[in-house]
Amino acid sequence: MYRSHNCGELNASHINTEVTLAGWVQKTRDKGFMIWVDLRDRYGITQLIFDSERTDAAVFEMAKTLGREFVIQVKGTVIERESKNKNMSTGDIEILVSELSLLNAALTPPFTIEDETDGGEDIRMKYRYLDIRRNPVKNSLLFRHKVTMEVRKYLSDLDFCEVETPYLIKSTPEGARDFVVPSRMNEGQFYALPQSPQTFKQLLMVGGMDKYFQIVKCFRDEDLRADRQPEFTQIDCEMAFVEQEDILNVFEGLTRHLLKEIKGIEVDKFPRITYDYAMKTYGNDKPDIRFGMEFGELNEVAQHKEFAVFNNAELVVGIAAPGCASYTRKEIDNLIDWVKRPQIGATGMVYAKYELDGSIKSSVDKFYDQDDLQNWAKATGAKPGDLILVLSGPANKTRTQLSALRMELATRLGLRNPEVFAPLWVVDFPLLEFDEESGRYHAMHHPFTSPKPEDIALLETEPGNVRANAYDMVLNGNEIGGGSIRIHDKATQQLMFKYLGFTEEEARNQFGFLMDAFQFGAPPHGGLAFGLDRLVAILGGQETIRDFIAFPKNNSGRDVMIDAPSAIDDKQLEELHIRLK
Amino acid sequence: MYRSHNCGELNASHINTEVTLAGWVQKTRDKGFMIWVDLRDRYGITQLIFDSERTDAAVFEMAKTLGREFVIQVKGTVIERESKNKNMSTGDIEILVSELSLLNAALTPPFTIEDETDGGEDIRMKYRYLDIRRNPVKNSLLFRHKVTMEVRKYLSDLDFCEVETPYLIKSTPEGARDFVVPSRMNEGQFYALPQSPQTFKQLLMVGGMDKYFQIVKCFRDEDLRADRQPEFTQIDCEMAFVEQEDILNVFEGLTRHLLKEIKGIEVDKFPRITYDYAMKTYGNDKPDIRFGMEFGELNEVAQHKEFAVFNNAELVVGIAAPGCASYTRKEIDNLIDWVKRPQIGATGMVYAKYELDGSIKSSVDKFYDQDDLQNWAKATGAKPGDLILVLSGPANKTRTQLSALRMELATRLGLRNPEVFAPLWVVDFPLLEFDEESGRYHAMHHPFTSPKPEDIALLETEPGNVRANAYDMVLNGNEIGGGSIRIHDKATQQLMFKYLGFTEEEARNQFGFLMDAFQFGAPPHGGLAFGLDRLVAILGGQETIRDFIAFPKNNSGRDVMIDAPSAIDDKQLEELHIRLK
Repeated sequence: MYRSHNCGELNASHINTEVTLAGWVQKTRDKGFMIWVDLRDRYGITQLIFDSERTDAAVFEMAKTLGREFVIQVKGTVIERESKNKNMSTGDIEILVSELSLLNAALTPPFTIEDETDGGEDIRMKYRYLDIRRNPVKNSLLFRHKVTMEVRKYLSDLDFCEVETPYLIKSTPEGARDFVVPSRMNEGQFYALPQSPQTFKQLLMVGGMDKYFQIVKCFRDEDLRADRQPEFTQIDCEMAFVEQEDILNVFEGLTRHLLKEIKGIEVDKFPRITYDYAMKTYGNDKPDIRFGMEFGELNEVAQHKEFAVFNNAELVVGIAAPGCASYTRKEIDNLIDWVKRPQIGATGMVYAKYELDGSIKSSVDKFYDQDDLQNWAKATGAKPGDLILVLSGPANKTRTQLSALRMELATRLGLRNPEVFAPLWVVDFPLLEFDEESGRYHAMHHPFTSPKPEDIALLETEPGNVRANAYDMVLNGNEIGGGSIRIHDKATQQLMFKYLGFTEEEARNQFGFLMDAFQFGAPPHGGLAFGLDRLVAILGGQETIRDFIAFPKNNSGRDVMIDAPSAIDDKQLEELHIRLK
Repeated sequence: MYRSHNCGELNASHINTEVTLAGWVQKTRDKGFMIWVDLRDRYGITQLIFDSERTDAAVFEMAKTLGREFVIQVKGTVIERESKNKNMSTGDIEILVSELSLLNAALTPPFTIEDETDGGEDIRMKYRYLDIRRNPVKNSLLFRHKVTMEVRKYLSDLDFCEVETPYLIKSTPEGARDFVVPSRMNEGQFYALPQSPQTFKQLLMVGGMDKYFQIVKCFRDEDLRADRQPEFTQIDCEMAFVEQEDILNVFEGLTRHLLKEIKGIEVDKFPRITYDYAMKTYGNDKPDIRFGMEFGELNEVAQHKEFAVFNNAELVVGIAAPGCASYTRKEIDNLIDWVKRPQIGATGMVYAKYELDGSIKSSVDKFYDQDDLQNWAKATGAKPGDLILVLSGPANKTRTQLSALRMELATRLGLRNPEVFAPLWVVDFPLLEFDEESGRYHAMHHPFTSPKPEDIALLETEPGNVRANAYDMVLNGNEIGGGSIRIHDKATQQLMFKYLGFTEEEARNQFGFLMDAFQFGAPPHGGLAFGLDRLVAILGGQETIRDFIAFPKNNSGRDVMIDAPSAIDDKQLEELHIRLK
């Protein structure tokens, strides 16, 4: 044992104890006759003191040579500190060192190992092992562990069984691009890495496993956007003999448990809203409901007047920004410029200030009188002191624009407090969505999602209006989980593949095993998957997932620390029966 | 909810309760006026009764049509059973059915869904989802979950943090063959799937994570032998600021905890033997010590007589088979034939029967008198009634042969009871082993293993005799875990790569990141990894790992259920910048 205690546990109760500690030199202060060293390990920081009068001369001299991040072992006595530090658990004591061993020297680190570092993203990623020494990253990884332990305990106590599904599976063209693995033993053939264990968990239900979960890596070879990783982790779950209501209850329970255990927060029963309601009310299928600013549709009250812009629009829709009636012309112009940015794409914005005296002043006063504007206030829920902001145009596009504005305003107004948690369910998602590029319908969730029985008849006539037994859990404006009740009979699954444009042969080749399985006694089943990286980031009160992943990849899918991917030997290519192009 | 109770929980206390159950039809017995159905789910079997007098006629008629593995839902009343079945938890009751819904019909399964099935390995793998319905497989998966939960709880309670390391890493030619993944975004480059998270866990130690574990999939593209899978699961662990003793204590504690929690067995402190001792005493570095039959070396007492075979042998070594002095000539000939099989390769075997009257009769009586043979008995620990079996020849080869014979005898004598657990540590493994094929030394464990400091001087002169700080945990003749104290300074690591035949450039290209990391304050560290598949199989009292893996691959690395690997589109190859050869 290199230590009797760690660097976070000693306090006044240990005074006069002989201890051995080991760790990294966080910093040294050399006052000539006295040297203080902050010794750091995973558990905390303990102050060491080398005293020219009380410390052996050789040890004292050696202490002078210690640099940042040197790894040392010390023996000494716990003594009371003269100037106590109330902000540290070890702040009442220090170690009067009697022996010092250098376990490993260190080059000067390329960035400071402090909570606020001077290192940019690139250098921190290249030296990720140094970055992990910093509290924000280290604590994020410890936090992630705590969350996964709680998830496992909770589900295990409910009789869920964690089953490992294979990583070397079969490539299917549906969905995102697969990462593939050439097979040496099966010439010309490839495995694929799973985008999710979807079909395997369904087969486990056919196999009678009843309640399954797995915390599992998944892989998607997509062009990377910020905060998306080629490999990511899911909490993957499935249950048999359940209806949607059962699934929602179980995983609402899990989420409530996490909020309570991890954050100490009790939340009410989650609101449930339909996809249609979410789109109409928030312009978004993952609404942030930590704040209001719900959409008010103004077609009835704002059209059929003299204002052509509104009259010609498919949708006129507004929100009430709380307390913003006092915005200056400049502030409002800034918002108008913001919505007109190409990323948002609005052509203009109308506003109306609901003054504290009850009057309303709008940018379109010549078309609308006070009665009209009071109707706007009513529709948007505006109160005196609020600023009504109105966009118009094609319905879907306008809703998306207003949703962006709503989120931007909430951010500016400080309404997106990361320590407030507002979960909800969005249900009744459409089964299909039309893809302009391929000119056909795609499964919005995946091809195994069941349509609502009462909507099946619409599949032929209005496929876009068929609702699915599909649901998302949304937390603070993020989709953190989603799932569905699955199809569990062969005929419906075949029909679904047909509607999705599979030939019979394609469906058979790719998913024959699943349809076969459905013929041997498949129970009704359904489930969902949480995105773990995002979930822990949100629970941790952070915007980005990267600090919650030990060794993330950059936006080109590279691990810059180990320099991967990289070229491989010709011999390897040969054995795998492939060549470079 | 499709059910109010599961099929394993109802008993006499529920009599007269109205219940709803759902599950699979295990079997039906139609007596004309009465139909019994065994309804099965994950939790058990409950007997249903349809009575022509008490059950609605339509329901009764429908019950007649139920086939094996149909999925049904029933409502009914719990009643007392006339002929109780004491072997079932639900054996006191049955359900008098009032309502019956067919949830899904089923084709006749291709093999019987019973504990002892009529299905061969191939058909069971193709329909693995049906195989999983069988108790032996289902219970193995539930058992695996229980083991992993206990591992996680134990380590987590000791402050170990589970950290997910990446799956898309870098290919290195050292060790087994990598599975590789062509990169679409980085033309001509490949990721590799990890053979283990070895370097990442070491970087986590450099990063101050202190105590790490992970239950993680690993990948090796090796030719598959029976019971080896291309993807397998490790319990991977690493600790900083530790010596070998600390690691052994922690993971001995874990294993003892598992034996206690999972099997209800308390084991003593694990014996620790050196690699040299293991080879000399058992001919094997993973000895099964559930039984004795330790090797007795006979060179001193059996050489320098008239028997040329022994005189010319490098090693004469024997074991005492307990109670086997009564073997007939035929039984002994059978053993001699067994050791002469090509797989074992002995040229002959000498035996000596230690009769109950104290006399010893050997197959080489003309060369050895009773005093000689008494010395043999002493060396092999034979007692009256035992059969001494002696092999001779080149030392290593002969030990391996005798080890095989020892195991075979133990099996025949029923000494390998799967419900007896005899764990031990084997320590002081050689650092290097000579590879005849490449004509150079390879790392026996891996290139990151530290040599014993007192042996470093031998690296130049007798590399084969350098001992490593490496250890294996052995359980019932299987290596279930192994690890080492690692090198943690750049100079030693560089030296090690040199001795292993790496050029400086190769070492730099492949492991530069690790040697860089060692320069920034690497703590002393070490760890180990358990093979989870094997561990759960042994704890479960089984010989083969396959039933403990939900979806195993066959010996050609194929998943015959989903038919993977398979061909992929030309478009995919194109995007990945590769061609088939």
